[in-house]
Amino acid sequence: MTYCIVVSVKEGLVLTSDSRTNAGIDNVSIHRKMHALPTHTNRTIVLLSAGNLATTQAVVDQLARDMKENAAVNLNTVASLAEAAEYLGQISVCKQNRHTNANAGQNGFFPAATFILAGQIAPAAHGAYLIYPEGNFITTSSHTPYLQIGEIKYGKPVLDRFLKVDTSLHEAGRCCLISMDSTMRSNVSVGAPVDLLIYRKDSYHLQEYYCFQEDDDYLLQLRRLWHEKLKESFAALPHIGNNEMHTLPYYQD
Amino acid sequence: MTYCIVVSVKEGLVLTSDSRTNAGIDNVSIHRKMHALPTHTNRTIVLLSAGNLATTQAVVDQLARDMKENAAVNLNTVASLAEAAEYLGQISVCKQNRHTNANAGQNGFFPAATFILAGQIAPAAHGAYLIYPEGNFITTSSHTPYLQIGEIKYGKPVLDRFLKVDTSLHEAGRCCLISMDSTMRSNVSVGAPVDLLIYRKDSYHLQEYYCFQEDDDYLLQLRRLWHEKLKESFAALPHIGNNEMHTLPYYQD
Repeated sequence: MTYCIVVSVKEGLVLTSDSRTNAGIDNVSIHRKMHALPTHTNRTIVLLSAGNLATTQAVVDQLARDMKENAAVNLNTVASLAEAAEYLGQISVCKQNRHTNANAGQNGFFPAATFILAGQIAPAAHGAYLIYPEGNFITTSSHTPYLQIGEIKYGKPVLDRFLKVDTSLHEAGRCCLISMDSTMRSNVSVGAPVDLLIYRKDSYHLQEYYCFQEDDDYLLQLRRLWHEKLKESFAALPHIGNNEMHTLPYYQD
Repeated sequence: MTYCIVVSVKEGLVLTSDSRTNAGIDNVSIHRKMHALPTHTNRTIVLLSAGNLATTQAVVDQLARDMKENAAVNLNTVASLAEAAEYLGQISVCKQNRHTNANAGQNGFFPAATFILAGQIAPAAHGAYLIYPEGNFITTSSHTPYLQIGEIKYGKPVLDRFLKVDTSLHEAGRCCLISMDSTMRSNVSVGAPVDLLIYRKDSYHLQEYYCFQEDDDYLLQLRRLWHEKLKESFAALPHIGNNEMHTLPYYQD
C-alpha cells in the first residue's frame, strides 16, 4: 500500500510520501514514491505515485526518456501543469494497457496506478494534479487545498481540520506528518522512510527535502507529543449530562 | 452508508451508531441502526447493522418472530453470544440468498449486510460479535476491545489511541462520539441522530441510552472543544530541525 499527500497553499507546495510497497503481504520492500524529474530550470515537476510498481516505474522512466530524447511532447515542452497531467495520463493508460492485453483473462493482475504531479511551470503559479488510472485528472481548490492517493481515509480528518490555503508551508508539513503517522498506525502496509518535500513558490529548487527513517528523533518526538496532547485533550472533554439519558425501546415486531 | 462501533471493556459495553441510510445519493433517509431485542430477563441482546436496509430489517424481524413463535432455535434458547452470532449469521445468509437468486444477473444489487451482536447471556460475561455477510464472525480481544462496521477508517485512529479494556464506560462513550464526529466530517453519508448505549455488566437493563440530534448541545460542545484542543495541540508541535534537510535527488534514467 501507499500513502501520499500534496498540499498546495499560497506559499507553495508540500509533498509527503511513505516508502513501503508490497506485492502480496509476504513481499514487502522499500521504494521511494517521490520522483523529481530533471526538467529545464524554468520548471519544477515532482511526481508521487501509488499502485502497481511496474506501471509507476515504467511511467516515470518514459517521462525521463521523452525529455532526454527531445520527444515532440515532453515535460520540457508542455505549456502548463494541466498539459503535463494530460500527457502523463496518456502514458499511464498506454503502459497499463500493454500488460493488461498480454495477460487477458488472468485474474488478480491490477496494473492500475495513480499519480500526483506537482510543481511549477514559469510564468504560471505552482499547483498540483491527481491523475487517475483512466488518465483523467483533478486539481486542488481553495476549499480543499490538498490531494491524497493510496490509503487516504485514516489520515484525512486531520487534513480537513487544519489545512487552509493560507496555512504556512511548515505548518502544512507538520500536518502531513501527523496524517502520515495516523495512517502508519492503522495500516502496516504504509511505512517509513517518510519523504517530505517543501517547495517555496517561484524558487524552482527542491532544496528543502527531509527523509525521516522509522527511528528518526524528530518523527518520534512529534508522534509522542501529539499522542500526549491528544490524551490531555481527551481527558478534558465534558461528561455527558444525565438529562439526556433515556431507555432504549425494544424492537416491536 | 453507516458507521457503528461496539466497545467491550471490563465494566461493560458501549454501542454507538449513526442513523443515515442511502439508496443512492439522491435517496437519503433516517433509520435507527441500533436494535434492542425483547429477550427474557436473564439476557440482553442488542444489534447494530450496516449494509442493505431490506436485509437488515428482514433479519431483525426474523429474530423477533422466532422468539415470539418459540422457534426451536431463537435468541431466548441460544446458550451463548457466540451461538447467537452463529444463528444470526445463518438467518442473514438465508435472507441475502433469497433475493440474490431472484435477481440473478442484475448488476448493482448488493444484498450484503454486516451486524454486530452485543450483550450478555447469564451467567456468562458480556461480549460482542461482528457477523460478516458470509455468516462467519469474530469477537473482540484484550488488545483490540472494539468492533466497527460500515465506514470504519476515518474514525479508527482515535479508537486505537484511547481504547483499552480498562477504559471506563463513559470514557469509551466519549471516544466513540469523537470517532463518530471525525467520520461525519469526512463522509456526508454518515449522519445524526447518533445513538449511544452504555450497558453496565450484569445489569441486564438498557437504561443508559442517549439519542443525540445534529444540533444537540452536548454533541456541539464536544465537537467544538475537541477541535479547539486539537488546534492548540497542533500549534504546540515542534518545528523540523534544519539539520535534517537535504536536496531531493533528480530521477536518473
